Amino acid sequence: MELLRQRILQDGKALSDSILKVDVFLNHQVDPDLMQSVGIDFAEHFKDQGITRVLTIESSGIAPAVYTAQALGVPMVILKKQTSKILNGKVYQTNITSFTKGTSYELTLSMDYISSDDRVLIIDDFLANGEAAMGAVRLCRMAGADIAGIGILIEKSFQNGRKRLIDAGYEVYSQARIAKLGEGLIEFVDE
Amino acid sequence: MELLRQRILQDGKALSDSILKVDVFLNHQVDPDLMQSVGIDFAEHFKDQGITRVLTIESSGIAPAVYTAQALGVPMVILKKQTSKILNGKVYQTNITSFTKGTSYELTLSMDYISSDDRVLIIDDFLANGEAAMGAVRLCRMAGADIAGIGILIEKSFQNGRKRLIDAGYEVYSQARIAKLGEGLIEFVDE
Repeated sequence: MELLRQRILQDGKALSDSILKVDVFLNHQVDPDLMQSVGIDFAEHFKDQGITRVLTIESSGIAPAVYTAQALGVPMVILKKQTSKILNGKVYQTNITSFTKGTSYELTLSMDYISSDDRVLIIDDFLANGEAAMGAVRLCRMAGADIAGIGILIEKSFQNGRKRLIDAGYEVYSQARIAKLGEGLIEFVDE
Repeated sequence: MELLRQRILQDGKALSDSILKVDVFLNHQVDPDLMQSVGIDFAEHFKDQGITRVLTIESSGIAPAVYTAQALGVPMVILKKQTSKILNGKVYQTNITSFTKGTSYELTLSMDYISSDDRVLIIDDFLANGEAAMGAVRLCRMAGADIAGIGILIEKSFQNGRKRLIDAGYEVYSQARIAKLGEGLIEFVDE
C-alpha cells in the first residue's frame, strides 16, 4: 500500500537492522486518517471472503482493525494480553512469548465472541517471527472458526513470520514489506 | 448520548452494585459504527475548544478516541501502561493504582507527543473513582499542556471520579451517567 510505505519512509525511524520505530503515526501517536485508509485497503483486499469478525491483538492493532471492521460492516474483537491464566472455562487462551521483549502472556478470547460459524480476518500492526499471529490463529482453531486471512501493516520480510503463516495454510496480506533495515536505512521488498 | 444509553440498556450486564459489563460492544468486542457515533458526539461537544491532540489510555479507549480525533482533525495519542519505570528522561510517567483490579502501573507518555503548545482532550471508556483520568491529567500538567476537558463514555456517577476532576478544575462530559447498578438493574442519572 503506497500511502503506508511513503509514510514509513517519511516518519519511520530505523534504529538497527531489526528495529523500526513508527511511534509517530501508529504505535504511540496515531494518525486517524491513515488508519482509515489502511482499514479500507484491508477491507477491499478481503471483501469477497465472507468475513464475519475482525480480530486484533491489543493495543496497536486496534485503530487499524476498527476501521477495517467498519469498512467490512462487521464487529471487531480485541484479543487481550492477560498476565495469568483465567481458570473459568469461558475463554480460549494460548501462551505467547515475545522474543523481542523477553516477556510472555496469555492471549485471551471470550467464547462469547467467536464460534464455529465465524470466518475471521486477523489484523496486526507488525509481523516479525509470527508468534502473536500464530497465537491468534490457535485461538480461532480452538473455536472451530475459519480464518480468511491475516492482514499486516508492516512486515519484517527478513524474519520468518510470513513463511510460518503461509506454511500453516493461511493467506498473508502485508501492506508494507520491509526487506532490509539498518541505522537510517529502510528498504522495501520489490513487488 | 441517547444512542449509547440505549445500547447499555440493551446489551450491558449489571453484575453487582458496582460492576457493569459492556464487553459486547466496547471492552472486548467493539461496534465500529457505535464508536464512530460516540467520537462524533465528543468532537461536536468540544469543537470550539481549540483541541490539538486527543489522549486516551490503552486499550479500551482507543476505538472511541481515534474516531474523536478524526472528527476533530487532530492526532490521537495512546498513553501506555508500563509495568516498570522507564529510566531515560524522554517520557513522562505517573503511577496509577487500580482499586478495582488491585494492580498498579506507570502511565507513560513520550515527550515527543505532547508540549506546552498543546490543548488536550482526554477520552476514556469508564470513569469510576477517577484514578486513571487524574493520572492522564498529571501527565499533561508535567508537559505544561492545557486540558480542554475529559470525555467519558460511561460514568459511574455513584463513585467520586467526576467530583475529583471537577474539583481539580476540569470539564467532564460523560455520554452515559449511571446513577445506580444492581444485579440486572441499570439506572441513569436524570438529565
